[in-house]
Amino acid sequence: MHIAIIGCGQLSRMLALAGIPLGFTFSFVADSREDIRCVEGLGTTVRWRPGESVQRLYQDLGKPERITVEKEQVDISLLNALQEYCVISPNLEAITTCGQRHREKRLLDKLGIASSPYTYGKSAADSAAILSLPMIAKSCNEGYDGKNQWMLTTSEEITSFDQQLDRRKHIIEQWIPFDKEVSQLSVRSQTGEIRHYPLTENQHKGGILQQSIAPATNIPTATIVLAQNRISQIMEALDYVGVMAMECFVVGEKLLVNELAPRVHNSGHWTQSGSTTCQFENHLRAIAGMTLGSTETHGVAGMLNLIGTDKPPLTLLSPRAKLHWYGKVIRPGRKLGHINLTGSSYQHLDGELQLFKKACEALITTRAE
Amino acid sequence: MHIAIIGCGQLSRMLALAGIPLGFTFSFVADSREDIRCVEGLGTTVRWRPGESVQRLYQDLGKPERITVEKEQVDISLLNALQEYCVISPNLEAITTCGQRHREKRLLDKLGIASSPYTYGKSAADSAAILSLPMIAKSCNEGYDGKNQWMLTTSEEITSFDQQLDRRKHIIEQWIPFDKEVSQLSVRSQTGEIRHYPLTENQHKGGILQQSIAPATNIPTATIVLAQNRISQIMEALDYVGVMAMECFVVGEKLLVNELAPRVHNSGHWTQSGSTTCQFENHLRAIAGMTLGSTETHGVAGMLNLIGTDKPPLTLLSPRAKLHWYGKVIRPGRKLGHINLTGSSYQHLDGELQLFKKACEALITTRAE
Repeated sequence: MHIAIIGCGQLSRMLALAGIPLGFTFSFVADSREDIRCVEGLGTTVRWRPGESVQRLYQDLGKPERITVEKEQVDISLLNALQEYCVISPNLEAITTCGQRHREKRLLDKLGIASSPYTYGKSAADSAAILSLPMIAKSCNEGYDGKNQWMLTTSEEITSFDQQLDRRKHIIEQWIPFDKEVSQLSVRSQTGEIRHYPLTENQHKGGILQQSIAPATNIPTATIVLAQNRISQIMEALDYVGVMAMECFVVGEKLLVNELAPRVHNSGHWTQSGSTTCQFENHLRAIAGMTLGSTETHGVAGMLNLIGTDKPPLTLLSPRAKLHWYGKVIRPGRKLGHINLTGSSYQHLDGELQLFKKACEALITTRAE
Repeated sequence: MHIAIIGCGQLSRMLALAGIPLGFTFSFVADSREDIRCVEGLGTTVRWRPGESVQRLYQDLGKPERITVEKEQVDISLLNALQEYCVISPNLEAITTCGQRHREKRLLDKLGIASSPYTYGKSAADSAAILSLPMIAKSCNEGYDGKNQWMLTTSEEITSFDQQLDRRKHIIEQWIPFDKEVSQLSVRSQTGEIRHYPLTENQHKGGILQQSIAPATNIPTATIVLAQNRISQIMEALDYVGVMAMECFVVGEKLLVNELAPRVHNSGHWTQSGSTTCQFENHLRAIAGMTLGSTETHGVAGMLNLIGTDKPPLTLLSPRAKLHWYGKVIRPGRKLGHINLTGSSYQHLDGELQLFKKACEALITTRAE
């Protein structure tokens, strides 16, 4: 099967590396300025600019049997046009809903799924009367890795937001003091079969995922079941095919959905070492119409993002550490790779993660000098 | 690190797929008629014919920092010449010893390691007086997958062998009625660290590996330890770096070494699903000077070769089955892919293997019609 992926980042790279053993071939759509190093050698890359022929693009991609995405911020007119030629999975409704925060919120509301209280189309000043401070304003269309978000804590910040930004392009949310951030990764097949990975516990810094461990610790069974039911509800409502990530806040016994990603997700990278089938293979199995792969796990697993560091010296890698280096240009704050670890206990895993973290911090420091 | 591999088959393919996540790049040496489909897209392939410039080859390969092999039948003059430019791992002594049956036998004899009784340089008639019937004659240089081997059971076969074949190019072995065929896969680092995978139990048909399961069943601990000691002895004697496979016969409580492979091996493919670090990654870790990866296993693992079959329909794959399809031209008797399976019990694993076997037999039949 020949599959085209929109986007040329590390998620596309890892999708291709998971699919090549299955005998799949790949091609990639890059926008005009996109760095394509991550996918070099793994298939044809075709650059496309709005206005160019989509028929030609489809041909240059090698007439794929399926098209999928590695990001939700995709040119919708392109997807609409490509749909004439082949199946896009997940479907357009799923991509456009999860790619726009207000649509996402409305879907959650419609399904009766708890998320943080919010306003849309209101000024920050009016919102402050409905919600309570602090609030967080988020761009509807351009948010990932904590970008295009503003904490609104003071009256100055509220005034400044109302003066500078278009209220129809943002939602304003109640800021939630959560106990934990977790994500539920699940996969749904063309026939509606759903398999869940265990809940993953995430640590962010400045909006960027730093580290995940799975299964998440100290989560009541009821919450685990709730997370699985919620994502199943969402995937069924969207007739979703592929892997979806649902990021949530755990607040006491409550689970608030924070964000949906209609794709494989950074917080699922640990599945490459910690599960019988990794998220990348399962996404491909789903969109290709195969039986889904087992999501069983071996022991406990952890993932550490390598952000803005040099490539770790290979001698640093301990026997259980798996390096995934994306081959990107090294830039501060950029996700350049990750390390997966598995262990028999959380204590052991945590010890190894801490060691790597320190070693990687040293790699950042060196570069900045 | 940039690594060149001599050979363009499935082992090179899987080495590259295991190394790309580590940030390694690859190039491949093909002989003049070699099919290069397995490695297409995974790096530059350079064709080389005896007599051509080796300096030019080294440059065309992108000046690799390491060279390794996926087969033991390699042009030795080529390796000798390449050695001037970069490190070859495993070293030439290891490749030439394991690539020639008589040298291999002499090494085992020197180390006091039991193997089947044999003669070299004697006629089959004389050998029959030393060994006992049946015997098996094996080409010193050209044997793999049971090719270039002759069973010598009758006096006609003995006479015919002596009339037709050069006794200096063959060894004649006592045929051994074994209880089990097993293989020990181990990896040795540049610093002499050794890690062992559990003993693997193999089933051959017509000299071609059909199926492996690991850990091997019903093997006394003493035999497991003996296998590990034997391969350690061999690797130390050769100052070996990389993964080695030692194929053995289990006969009662005895372990007879049958064959050494100075490379990753078909009977180690199960490690892709069944071990923390697969044989391909560990071979690369060893030759690149990294800490070796953990060889711990998850449950029990099995591997089924797909020989001369069409590509299995993707819908055939059960949730725990991992397909590795090599992208080769389909021909009868050719190794075209394999399926890895993991399970919590041998019974469960065996059930799944039997199901696949039947399904794959159907795929052969269909093609022959």
